[in-house]
Amino acid sequence: MFNLIKTEGAARRGELITPHGTVQTPAFMNVATDGAIKGGVSALDLKKLKCQVQLCNTYHLHLRPGDENVRRLGGLHKFTRWDGPILTDSGGFQVFSLAKLRNITEEGVTFASHIDGHKIFMGPEESMRIQSNLGSTIAMAFDECVKNPAEYDYARASCERTVRWLCRSKAEMDRLNSLPDTLNRHQMLFGINQGSTFEDLRIACMREIRKLDLDGYAIGGLAVGESAECMYHIIETVEPEMPKDKPRYLMGVGMPVNILECVKRGVDMFDCVLPTRNARHGHAFTWSGCRNLFNAKYVLDELPLDTECDCPVCRNFSRAYIHHLFKSGEILAMRLCVMHNIYFYNTLFERIRDSLDKGCFSEFFNRYIDVIGKRI
Amino acid sequence: MFNLIKTEGAARRGELITPHGTVQTPAFMNVATDGAIKGGVSALDLKKLKCQVQLCNTYHLHLRPGDENVRRLGGLHKFTRWDGPILTDSGGFQVFSLAKLRNITEEGVTFASHIDGHKIFMGPEESMRIQSNLGSTIAMAFDECVKNPAEYDYARASCERTVRWLCRSKAEMDRLNSLPDTLNRHQMLFGINQGSTFEDLRIACMREIRKLDLDGYAIGGLAVGESAECMYHIIETVEPEMPKDKPRYLMGVGMPVNILECVKRGVDMFDCVLPTRNARHGHAFTWSGCRNLFNAKYVLDELPLDTECDCPVCRNFSRAYIHHLFKSGEILAMRLCVMHNIYFYNTLFERIRDSLDKGCFSEFFNRYIDVIGKRI
Repeated sequence: MFNLIKTEGAARRGELITPHGTVQTPAFMNVATDGAIKGGVSALDLKKLKCQVQLCNTYHLHLRPGDENVRRLGGLHKFTRWDGPILTDSGGFQVFSLAKLRNITEEGVTFASHIDGHKIFMGPEESMRIQSNLGSTIAMAFDECVKNPAEYDYARASCERTVRWLCRSKAEMDRLNSLPDTLNRHQMLFGINQGSTFEDLRIACMREIRKLDLDGYAIGGLAVGESAECMYHIIETVEPEMPKDKPRYLMGVGMPVNILECVKRGVDMFDCVLPTRNARHGHAFTWSGCRNLFNAKYVLDELPLDTECDCPVCRNFSRAYIHHLFKSGEILAMRLCVMHNIYFYNTLFERIRDSLDKGCFSEFFNRYIDVIGKRI
Repeated sequence: MFNLIKTEGAARRGELITPHGTVQTPAFMNVATDGAIKGGVSALDLKKLKCQVQLCNTYHLHLRPGDENVRRLGGLHKFTRWDGPILTDSGGFQVFSLAKLRNITEEGVTFASHIDGHKIFMGPEESMRIQSNLGSTIAMAFDECVKNPAEYDYARASCERTVRWLCRSKAEMDRLNSLPDTLNRHQMLFGINQGSTFEDLRIACMREIRKLDLDGYAIGGLAVGESAECMYHIIETVEPEMPKDKPRYLMGVGMPVNILECVKRGVDMFDCVLPTRNARHGHAFTWSGCRNLFNAKYVLDELPLDTECDCPVCRNFSRAYIHHLFKSGEILAMRLCVMHNIYFYNTLFERIRDSLDKGCFSEFFNRYIDVIGKRI
């Protein structure tokens, strides 16, 4: 269930109540692709990094260790030791971006595993069964994510099929949730808005899928080739069509600047690999901009990554030490930087929520929008 | 200062009092080559893994980030955030094993950096100055570690030079400790016994170096090519010549079985990369033998790495999860396995000390000697 607590312009402060705990929104979901945050961070570490939601990838876990094995091991919560909410994606995005030799029909997609090339079929029913086996808190509907720019006719046909797939996803999830031996009898389902960069397709899609009264609605197919301005415009186009009483999740976004812009446009939930991926390459997000820890200027710098941060890394380690660890190829460099960036992202959302609570999101936005993306 | 608390046969229970805290012996020193344990484990993690001493490598830190930089940053303790005792090796072992184009003279060794090939000279005085800049608790004398098997004449000449280098190491360390701006005015110095596998050389060397009344004595040049039986025999040969009131450190040893055998022969201190290196390759030490976590039999195994272990990893994660992380190439696999192995090694030493305290080391030895090395 979603409670809308407060609004400021289009920006929303809310809470999503799930069987695994309540998520304060706007919220960031921390990406643990294979059931672990890349960079050597465990679910127990996440507890110290203000994480609210862990996101795991259906496609990866289906291939390895196999969703039926995860089910036998008691589900993702027990497997990864994260007891808070877990969102699983549908597998669709990875099928269309990682897998090879795809063949799409009305039934679903046949593709070759990127690990060993073996042929797999996945349609809405298969995706729901896999996510049910994983036992996540929130399952995502099976969709096709079309890269931008797209042909109008392809985007329309794909979008219409995605809506049909959503109906099948819902029917299958309802059936799975009613089984006596299901891991999570209250598994939630979010639908996904598609339609590429075409306003009419986006609106038509949204009007169709809102009829299904799902637990939440995602905007997919953005941040996949179009400009940030185009992305913001599509969000502004589709947002008025989205139910007010359901959480809105913008998939795969983004940099702190994008997040501020999209919260402003009414988005409640986000996920992105940037805080962890950039950290592994030595990039630390801070309240005054983004640092590259490989830079030689940090050799003798005794300050923490961010002087405004009180994360476990900034309370203990210097830029000089982390610079040295990156130069030496030590794994600890990645771990420390990943932990800091995760904490930074979750703190960014905490401060966004705080500003919404206090009715000063617009001041918060203006204070950071030009600073937070700078290279320093 | 070293207090010998109790003996059982040749095995010794003692404590080494240092400016950075007291080390209960027998003790294991945890190898943090570049100032970090490989596998993503920080000095703060070490506190939870029963670590008593961190060992850092002089050669590596001299090359990167540079010992003068470490000094400017306040020394290794501040740099790595480990506030307990730190032992630095002399750099000699790495000069003779990692570096290229070596040229040895009475003065010292000229060699090419393994990172960028630039020429470096290191003799006893340079090694002491570097270790003084690092500010370690215990410095090791500069020596030549001759690989086994060695020619008798070469081993004898090298060993005699190593003794002369020790005298120069001591003189230089005394001078450095008396400087007003030194990081650690009570930096301790251990001498190193060499002589390859030749009994007469080992004994002659030990008789010479014990005259210097150093803070401790190491046995070097073992576990470098000879059999375990040969190593045990050399320890038995040299041990009666070692001062009773000084700690004895066997460098670079070893597997748990080797440790039990060498504690039995009167060794107090050990260091080895095996617990961390083997962990990174999926090998977990347990009280019933050694596991390979890549083994497919762990796919559905919900037990911890070691059912007898109460480390932070075994209290939380299953073999199935760690197996999955290794198969997926997740860095978290290495971190979890490294943490477990470090805890295992430090617990092994805790239990060795406990058995010595209770006068039942021989029962402890007999109970584990045939079990602890098994592959399971």
